[in-house]
Amino acid sequence: MSDDGTGEDGAGHEQPPREAFGHDPIGHAEAQAGTTVGELATEYGEAGVGAADMHEAVDIYADMLEEDVTVVMGLAGAMVPSGMRRIVANLIRDGHVDALVTTGANLTHDTIEAIGGKHHHGPVPDEKRERDHDEQLREEGVDRIYNVYLPQEHFTLFESHLRETVFPALAEEGTVSIQRLTEKLGEANAAVNDEEGVDEGSGIAAAAFESDVPIYCPAVQDSVLGLQAWMYNQTADFSLDALADMDTLTDQAFDADRTGALVVGGGVPKNYVLQTMLVAPGAYDLAVQLTMDPPQTGGLSGATLDEARSWGKLETAARNVSVYADATITLPLLVAAARERVEE
Amino acid sequence: MSDDGTGEDGAGHEQPPREAFGHDPIGHAEAQAGTTVGELATEYGEAGVGAADMHEAVDIYADMLEEDVTVVMGLAGAMVPSGMRRIVANLIRDGHVDALVTTGANLTHDTIEAIGGKHHHGPVPDEKRERDHDEQLREEGVDRIYNVYLPQEHFTLFESHLRETVFPALAEEGTVSIQRLTEKLGEANAAVNDEEGVDEGSGIAAAAFESDVPIYCPAVQDSVLGLQAWMYNQTADFSLDALADMDTLTDQAFDADRTGALVVGGGVPKNYVLQTMLVAPGAYDLAVQLTMDPPQTGGLSGATLDEARSWGKLETAARNVSVYADATITLPLLVAAARERVEE
Amino acid sequence: MSDDGTGEDGAGHEQPPREAFGHDPIGHAEAQAGTTVGELATEYGEAGVGAADMHEAVDIYADMLEEDVTVVMGLAGAMVPSGMRRIVANLIRDGHVDALVTTGANLTHDTIEAIGGKHHHGPVPDEKRERDHDEQLREEGVDRIYNVYLPQEHFTLFESHLRETVFPALAEEGTVSIQRLTEKLGEANAAVNDEEGVDEGSGIAAAAFESDVPIYCPAVQDSVLGLQAWMYNQTADFSLDALADMDTLTDQAFDADRTGALVVGGGVPKNYVLQTMLVAPGAYDLAVQLTMDPPQTGGLSGATLDEARSWGKLETAARNVSVYADATITLPLLVAAARERVEE
Amino acid sequence: MSDDGTGEDGAGHEQPPREAFGHDPIGHAEAQAGTTVGELATEYGEAGVGAADMHEAVDIYADMLEEDVTVVMGLAGAMVPSGMRRIVANLIRDGHVDALVTTGANLTHDTIEAIGGKHHHGPVPDEKRERDHDEQLREEGVDRIYNVYLPQEHFTLFESHLRETVFPALAEEGTVSIQRLTEKLGEANAAVNDEEGVDEGSGIAAAAFESDVPIYCPAVQDSVLGLQAWMYNQTADFSLDALADMDTLTDQAFDADRTGALVVGGGVPKNYVLQTMLVAPGAYDLAVQLTMDPPQTGGLSGATLDEARSWGKLETAARNVSVYADATITLPLLVAAARERVEE
Repeated sequence: MSDDGTGEDGAGHEQPPREAFGHDPIGHAEAQAGTTVGELATEYGEAGVGAADMHEAVDIYADMLEEDVTVVMGLAGAMVPSGMRRIVANLIRDGHVDALVTTGANLTHDTIEAIGGKHHHGPVPDEKRERDHDEQLREEGVDRIYNVYLPQEHFTLFESHLRETVFPALAEEGTVSIQRLTEKLGEANAAVNDEEGVDEGSGIAAAAFESDVPIYCPAVQDSVLGLQAWMYNQTADFSLDALADMDTLTDQAFDADRTGALVVGGGVPKNYVLQTMLVAPGAYDLAVQLTMDPPQTGGLSGATLDEARSWGKLETAARNVSVYADATITLPLLVAAARERVEE
Repeated sequence: MSDDGTGEDGAGHEQPPREAFGHDPIGHAEAQAGTTVGELATEYGEAGVGAADMHEAVDIYADMLEEDVTVVMGLAGAMVPSGMRRIVANLIRDGHVDALVTTGANLTHDTIEAIGGKHHHGPVPDEKRERDHDEQLREEGVDRIYNVYLPQEHFTLFESHLRETVFPALAEEGTVSIQRLTEKLGEANAAVNDEEGVDEGSGIAAAAFESDVPIYCPAVQDSVLGLQAWMYNQTADFSLDALADMDTLTDQAFDADRTGALVVGGGVPKNYVLQTMLVAPGAYDLAVQLTMDPPQTGGLSGATLDEARSWGKLETAARNVSVYADATITLPLLVAAARERVEE
Repeated sequence: MSDDGTGEDGAGHEQPPREAFGHDPIGHAEAQAGTTVGELATEYGEAGVGAADMHEAVDIYADMLEEDVTVVMGLAGAMVPSGMRRIVANLIRDGHVDALVTTGANLTHDTIEAIGGKHHHGPVPDEKRERDHDEQLREEGVDRIYNVYLPQEHFTLFESHLRETVFPALAEEGTVSIQRLTEKLGEANAAVNDEEGVDEGSGIAAAAFESDVPIYCPAVQDSVLGLQAWMYNQTADFSLDALADMDTLTDQAFDADRTGALVVGGGVPKNYVLQTMLVAPGAYDLAVQLTMDPPQTGGLSGATLDEARSWGKLETAARNVSVYADATITLPLLVAAARERVEE
Repeated sequence: MSDDGTGEDGAGHEQPPREAFGHDPIGHAEAQAGTTVGELATEYGEAGVGAADMHEAVDIYADMLEEDVTVVMGLAGAMVPSGMRRIVANLIRDGHVDALVTTGANLTHDTIEAIGGKHHHGPVPDEKRERDHDEQLREEGVDRIYNVYLPQEHFTLFESHLRETVFPALAEEGTVSIQRLTEKLGEANAAVNDEEGVDEGSGIAAAAFESDVPIYCPAVQDSVLGLQAWMYNQTADFSLDALADMDTLTDQAFDADRTGALVVGGGVPKNYVLQTMLVAPGAYDLAVQLTMDPPQTGGLSGATLDEARSWGKLETAARNVSVYADATITLPLLVAAARERVEE
């Protein structure tokens, strides 16, 4: 039987040619014991909807892992407190990230773990009546990020770390770029993590410092890290230049052969990764977005990557895909599957 | 250092005891080449948010795969046209589904593939101006389900199959239960699939027929299968009894030792799986829900399983979890990981 | 200045003609004290994204309120317990609904209020640790639907009502259509509501009975109403014909001049409203969908109405729009604004 | 009949006391022609789910409109290009905003309209095959934000405005705070808008300048406004201090009697509005959040306001509510209804 069913009615009359869909039949995924994550991604390719998008994301990201691709990664939201820290640090150490754009919150939590603090699993309290729950947490000195809990004394530890090891050296330099702050932070995290023999790894900022990968954090003042910098700035001749980082990021874009964007979550990191190309000669050749924000609200975080194409942030011929699902599920899957494909 | 940081300030003063979170620190997931899906699920357990839920879902579902658990599975939405058919059919054949509740749409598409039809990958057209796209599809005789395309002549094939192989035998029985319709459908699908040597497997209804697993389809009239039944009923003394199926499903619940609910998507299948326990002596001991519907709309499809507990549909002590992410991604992952865990 | 900016650079060079957007500039909404809902809808027309969709929905729905339009309304989910009962009943009484497709849950809750029961506002408990909340509710005999609570003795009242006033009369008719059940239910609700002087109005089923508007409920067995029907059927010669309703709904579609679909929420009611047109000569001329389900999951509930066009359920030239926002907010807004427009 | 049904069974036996829900029965909303928006909000209070939240939001926001409340407003995403500009500008002019936190994108689009540019309604193209659409837009020089279109020559106009009227004066001041940039921008927008007799109002930045309301924009470098500042900085001795703004915002929080947060959308503006209270003696007394981001992803944008309570950003006794629905629909509704309530 022909694929598009012509002739099925046996009548021999001509059908209009069908341009709207190709002859790319949907198969059906399998799921057996012992399947590797790479094989699972292949199975996704047999299916439709989000599974097909996930398959394409692995394909495109495997291409990004090639040496000649300059990868700019955007890491939004609460990805570090929710457990993605090691995966990102390893990608940096393995040379798969050329620039990281992230939030002050991620760097704050990355640092807390580097110097010996911990996040904890906890319950999701309810929106209305039982706000007693959050009142109780407040009394107990515990901060909550959805189902992740953080004792507040870790912020005291964090403050000491910044005031002893990070800020004084920077204050000698006067006004510095935000990237310089993250670099110094990474250096300090690596040192303390090593000296104190902390169980948990030294993390993202440390990996970036040791691998000469710049971390950009456009809204750093919108975080506990930023608040601490501001409080230090009250008594010291120290500040952050909001514009200085664009020089080096733009240089990276100029010098790149092929470029790829891995965007995890939305917000400022997403937009900043993409807007870089507005002042570069080219645009992204490869782009993968993992997000759970819906596109139909018109918000930036859920916007499709095709929208970015109209702005010239993606090459007309770029390969790109967005996967709409929880990024704490899809990021480990993406990375394990693409790594498997590359090492084959 | 103690887990909750007491002593960190070195001051020795007493902290209030913290009841709101346990001492269950968040680690960080890894994602290396060659990781199996089961190992990935273990890594998810190191993380927070959706990943932690996914890990728990695998844990609970692995328990459901035990022999003594009677599993009722709800399969909503467009799961068959989007590629989940083989996974579900294999679960049935392997004895991991004791009753399936699904939609007429899934059975329609399951049958079309069993008898030689195919779905195709295609583009997602846009909501507004470019509705020309769907107008063009209509002229070309192609139906669209999001990014899945189906040539309409497959419905002609489906109609012949029902009128020749399925309905006449049922009409001799007069008014039958909906489950009897799905059983006869499965028998016919298996026969035609075999006779005509169709490449694609015989599918869900056939597997259920051959494994003596009942398929319930409460809203069967809300589908092309139902429309065909109605059209046949115009000229034949044949109808469907809307209430008859509850006898057998309730019997299964009565006879069960432990019971588990695997709910994929929302809608009628979800509710029907859960409400069964309103007329049974017990309630579900284990429950996993894979859904992308948000809970905060108050709709049934996104409702948490805990809400079902207030109705007595889940045991007070039941283990249950909802994973809010695209089910075409999470179902294959869940099944492969739980199967791996069980076979270890 | 010309609308598309040609000439702005003063250089006189020719720009390519722009086909992708019309010359329809976005203004900006105002929001003053004393604004009527109809005026608010006009303001929405000045804005973009969801506001523009809401404006278009009011426009299309105002057209549906015209006498010559046969309106089929789909009412899904928990719309009655969440407070939309009076609006729907009034639309029926005012002749603005020609057929209603809904769920057994909505009819159950509609009836409970008609005979003197009440739903209550309550808190949204949390998903994980504090499931004690739902355990406690279970002990107290209270059912929860998101933030709506229902004492279980109302179900006892409901059962008596059905067994005394509704089922016996139907049992004399033997096997009846589901629409006949809802009609008899409406008759009984109206009678009891009146006799007992219940404060709350007699509701949707009563309004439909008194206005000769059929209510279809394809998955009636998937509800407490259906469970009660099944339990009655264990001892009486009474059953429901799953196929019989299609005759009258199809007849309505055949006889209609212009047709409109008002789809509130997704699920079976949505699909059933739309699929009716698969066996009618025409298709919907007007369609409005209010939903919060995201389209990108591929699920039916969030599917765009344009997708329905590829199936021939909407006329090629139909006016249609989907508003992605909480329907308990958008339905009152839509109805008040469209009524205002019509009465002007 | 008692509200919770005790006695309904007439048996006189004692029921356990019910603590989990109050005696607050759900009524049913009405929606008649001529209803004002304030009356609609009252009707919402009769209903459940999102409607009840919307009602509460109006209540809380009406309280925020009182003179003694210092209101910090967060305005995220694409709210200006999608038509919310006039509402926000009017709130500022009427003294209902004491500090605004927003994005560079909003200020860019606010300015473009102030000096004579326009956004346009347009179609939403599709994610996959029809990316030709965005390629075509790129060739035509049109940028797209969901269903809003912007001709690129408006950016040229914007660039001239900044380079002629805004940056030179600032460069004379050397390194300035970001708030100083937005203030100067507002001054320039007001002047050009007036001189050139632009039809559209002078907008948000101008209103803020004229009303002495500070605008904070933590991630200004993540926008076209920021890119322009950076390009100017390449050849002039001009930069932005990332930390300086916290002084004045913190002062406002210190001096406030009662404080309120109106958070429209998520992202940096949301977090920055809330974190201000981490370095202030008090916390917010009133808070309303309008968002469509789902809370269950663990992302900041969808996080509940109760979560903020655990961090001490909201007073333990604060009144707060989140409405999960399209903000372009809910913001005009909120403002019109609260204004009506206050003027009564």
